Amino acid sequence: MDEVGQSRPAGTLINTPDITPDELQLAVRNHSMPLEALRYDITPVGLHYLLIHFDIPVVDASSYELSVGGHVRRQLRLSIDELMARPSTTLAVTLECAGNGRARLHPRPMSQPWLCEAVGTAEWTGTPLAPILEEAGVLDGAVDVVFTGLDRGVQGGVDQHYERSLSLEDAVRAEVLLAYAINGRPLPPQHGFPMRLIVPGWYGMAHVKWLRAITVIDQPFAGYQQARAYHHRMSDGDSGAPVATILPRALMVPPGVPDFMSRTRFVEPSTQVIEGRAWSGRGTIVSVDLSADGGASWMPTTLHDPRSPYAWCGWTCEWDATRPGEYELCVRAGDAAGNVQPLDQSWNVEGVENNAVQRVRVVVGSLADRQVPADSR
Amino acid sequence: MDEVGQSRPAGTLINTPDITPDELQLAVRNHSMPLEALRYDITPVGLHYLLIHFDIPVVDASSYELSVGGHVRRQLRLSIDELMARPSTTLAVTLECAGNGRARLHPRPMSQPWLCEAVGTAEWTGTPLAPILEEAGVLDGAVDVVFTGLDRGVQGGVDQHYERSLSLEDAVRAEVLLAYAINGRPLPPQHGFPMRLIVPGWYGMAHVKWLRAITVIDQPFAGYQQARAYHHRMSDGDSGAPVATILPRALMVPPGVPDFMSRTRFVEPSTQVIEGRAWSGRGTIVSVDLSADGGASWMPTTLHDPRSPYAWCGWTCEWDATRPGEYELCVRAGDAAGNVQPLDQSWNVEGVENNAVQRVRVVVGSLADRQVPADSR
Repeated sequence: MDEVGQSRPAGTLINTPDITPDELQLAVRNHSMPLEALRYDITPVGLHYLLIHFDIPVVDASSYELSVGGHVRRQLRLSIDELMARPSTTLAVTLECAGNGRARLHPRPMSQPWLCEAVGTAEWTGTPLAPILEEAGVLDGAVDVVFTGLDRGVQGGVDQHYERSLSLEDAVRAEVLLAYAINGRPLPPQHGFPMRLIVPGWYGMAHVKWLRAITVIDQPFAGYQQARAYHHRMSDGDSGAPVATILPRALMVPPGVPDFMSRTRFVEPSTQVIEGRAWSGRGTIVSVDLSADGGASWMPTTLHDPRSPYAWCGWTCEWDATRPGEYELCVRAGDAAGNVQPLDQSWNVEGVENNAVQRVRVVVGSLADRQVPADSR
Repeated sequence: MDEVGQSRPAGTLINTPDITPDELQLAVRNHSMPLEALRYDITPVGLHYLLIHFDIPVVDASSYELSVGGHVRRQLRLSIDELMARPSTTLAVTLECAGNGRARLHPRPMSQPWLCEAVGTAEWTGTPLAPILEEAGVLDGAVDVVFTGLDRGVQGGVDQHYERSLSLEDAVRAEVLLAYAINGRPLPPQHGFPMRLIVPGWYGMAHVKWLRAITVIDQPFAGYQQARAYHHRMSDGDSGAPVATILPRALMVPPGVPDFMSRTRFVEPSTQVIEGRAWSGRGTIVSVDLSADGGASWMPTTLHDPRSPYAWCGWTCEWDATRPGEYELCVRAGDAAGNVQPLDQSWNVEGVENNAVQRVRVVVGSLADRQVPADSR
């Protein structure tokens, strides 16, 4: 429909590995975390992943008000100063997009084409939500708490502000925050200035940015992003299971140096310390294993303590890369709830909750002598 | 060559609008500026465009030293504290990737597939380069000044640290800075921590990040990024013209609200104030014209003063969007040197210096009544 090609409907399944112009438009707007940024325990602003459904709204903090209402005894209207004057908590939280890994599915669901880097960990500062709901006085019969953002657009044929809900039970968990700072600084526009929701352990769609209203309702929320999007469905007719907490995933910093175009890695023969991060929203990470042969054999890595129960943990592993040759490194995490990453794609209609293991192609050999493959010239 | 598809050589020409898996890998690593961020005179960190050829290197500022040597009377070694103790300048500078617009070319050169958003404007603080070269004492016969980064990788079959040069004449221009801060804060890793070159008016490839060495040489620099890459060539055999200063370009903030997938814009019938930015490295912007009919007719916009001679200027224009229908908005800038943006692509082998006008599809109509096109469901 534009000069670069033919539009295809969102949600269409694509049978080629090639990416349509519409997918590219999303890929250039939305930012992945370059994998070498896994070196940072706390992701610097500008390297954290970003998925912005519509446009980043312009918000004037001086006139900003958060409304809290619906099925409550009294409506509240809170300015940013009032929110910041309340008790504050700072918590390191790993956020990951529910669609992370989508672009590696086959057939591929037409949406934001993430490879595997839609993740980041930040220190969020904010005020807990539960006491605010308590002040508003949630009435008997309350079911869901709806969070409405200032961002607006059309998706699935529906003109909407971005809205998601939590059950009342999830909403009053102690770790759920209304956050106004990231890594010790005010939120930048792209992370939800002046105020966003943080729901530790959940995929990114729950952490509503540019939050303008919190509404308690006495029936299940039926909004587009809750009832239609973000479900693990095996066919169009399948009602599916809603996406919620994050499945385990480990990622490594690709070793050596990259080829610009193919991102193939070149490593001088040596012992390499491979490092990375692993996380799960469903339980503590209990194992991270590394394979240098594409998943045929595995060795354990050493796990390091995370900053918080909701943040990724570091891991390190020595890899004997003294023998020249081509290798496929893989890494696989498991959590205390018994979830382990699959070797193969976990296909579904929307391409959500795909946590297949990362694979990195590495060529061990002397860079000085090496004839670089023709495909990277 | 990897699990998502077939690798094709960098520089290959691609005849379909679809994007290969290798191009997608670059698109997810490298960040565009979402177009609504044109609202900010100074781009917030995290929204400025990023092109990182290899990996972001890890640098320990406490042991960092910049060496200045080669064809000079005395070598200098400068710590970050010594560099920061020197006279400082703060300057608003618009940076744009030389390959901006590449993904809209046909056939498309295989490299980073930018649409049109590879741009940003920051306030850079640093110390001028010229007095440092004066202290080192450039010897007679000096030709080029080579800037070497700490980032390393393989490109075009060549294992290299990222390196670019300037002629001695360009290097000693007063506005050329060794920058250690962006928007009043230390450089984040992705912008070249702890020190980078800023060459106002030039495309991004000149602004070497993670700068570790400055070397004066008595012959033209023949490094890969200078002599092979970044040339405007019409065929493989053409030696071409080196890429240098930025051609004019204007971009608009797309009006109304977007469709998630197609990014088509929906506008309620009304008078719209269209706003955006325009810049050129070759002369002051003297005209920005807006078209609502795909370039058939044009109306002038109002230009606003830029923050510096090297920063974009704002522009605004009222658009009578009261009549429902479909429109293609275009915007076109011209500079004082007589350069005007072309309506059509400016094709070349590498896909550099392409400054064809931006085109934005807008549907004017009531969002409440509107049947959203089937292609965005």
